Amino acid sequence: MRSIREWIQEESEVLGPEFLRVDGILNHCVDPEFIVCVGEELWRRFNDQEITCVVTAEAAGNIVAYELARRLGVRALYAKKGKAATMVRPLMRALISPTKRAAVELAISRDYLSSEDRVIVVDDFLYQGTTSALLADMVVESGAELIGFGFVIEKTFAGGRDALARFEVPIKTLAPIRTMNPSSGTIEFAEMP
Amino acid sequence: MRSIREWIQEESEVLGPEFLRVDGILNHCVDPEFIVCVGEELWRRFNDQEITCVVTAEAAGNIVAYELARRLGVRALYAKKGKAATMVRPLMRALISPTKRAAVELAISRDYLSSEDRVIVVDDFLYQGTTSALLADMVVESGAELIGFGFVIEKTFAGGRDALARFEVPIKTLAPIRTMNPSSGTIEFAEMP
Repeated sequence: MRSIREWIQEESEVLGPEFLRVDGILNHCVDPEFIVCVGEELWRRFNDQEITCVVTAEAAGNIVAYELARRLGVRALYAKKGKAATMVRPLMRALISPTKRAAVELAISRDYLSSEDRVIVVDDFLYQGTTSALLADMVVESGAELIGFGFVIEKTFAGGRDALARFEVPIKTLAPIRTMNPSSGTIEFAEMP
Repeated sequence: MRSIREWIQEESEVLGPEFLRVDGILNHCVDPEFIVCVGEELWRRFNDQEITCVVTAEAAGNIVAYELARRLGVRALYAKKGKAATMVRPLMRALISPTKRAAVELAISRDYLSSEDRVIVVDDFLYQGTTSALLADMVVESGAELIGFGFVIEKTFAGGRDALARFEVPIKTLAPIRTMNPSSGTIEFAEMP
């Protein structure tokens, strides 16, 4: 069985020193074999934490969050972007997406988080940590306990880990990337949690 | 085990004669037990069709498409909305969302569909069929073969089935709704494929 790092190395394209396309297995075309591996690896890192809910933001994080939630036997909760006409008692944060350069509203309904909950925030990428920090803020505001963060890929040079440090919880990444070389297409992984 | 119709009846809220909120199991907070049921039921309807790819549109369809793809052992492909900076060789369609009232671009990369493919288009809801028709158009344009449509919930009064009739493929719905009564909260299901 391929490791997550092998999957990333073999199935992604380095488009720039900070720009990785994983459209063939994760971000557009989704390979369930890869996602099941991801779910298994994240499960190994969090299954002893009595997690009750996996939180993410639509759309890229949904499948990873769902697979992990299925594996843990708990629910997944994805923040909606933009005006969510049917949402009640929303917690809201304004998100400026670094890739799309537009402000959108992130929303989670208080109906689905309570002080009984033990939550992990997961996403496909940890880049600058903006989205995950907003999600974690909403989790804390709901009264739930934030237990940790889990990511498939981390761009370790982008400062995301620093942006999440204030939450003082473990940050687990399956494929932390130190550098990417667009001419050779190679990815150098970091030794990291 | 609860049937899909029982899940919908018990876990959704009727907000208007055409307006159903399923945020507690499907559209915001996701119950893996329900989604696994949905995947199993859609699998039963399509597993003898040699499907190679399950196509949907982000974000609501992603988890349903992924679970069905995992069950079938094939890949899921979700159309991206808005400008997708990293996409190559895109097939594009302009979508006017009936709920959000704004035009967005739906895009699928030709890299992930070919004339070898046998495709089903799935989504959480069949309402007017707009999104699914655009997805099916893109599938046909790619040269792949469209085998059918699969939906969790159909609002049979909204004309979606008519909008998809021109594709001349089976349309399978797990919970076809004939009427919804916002005062009593009851849902009357239709007898239908």
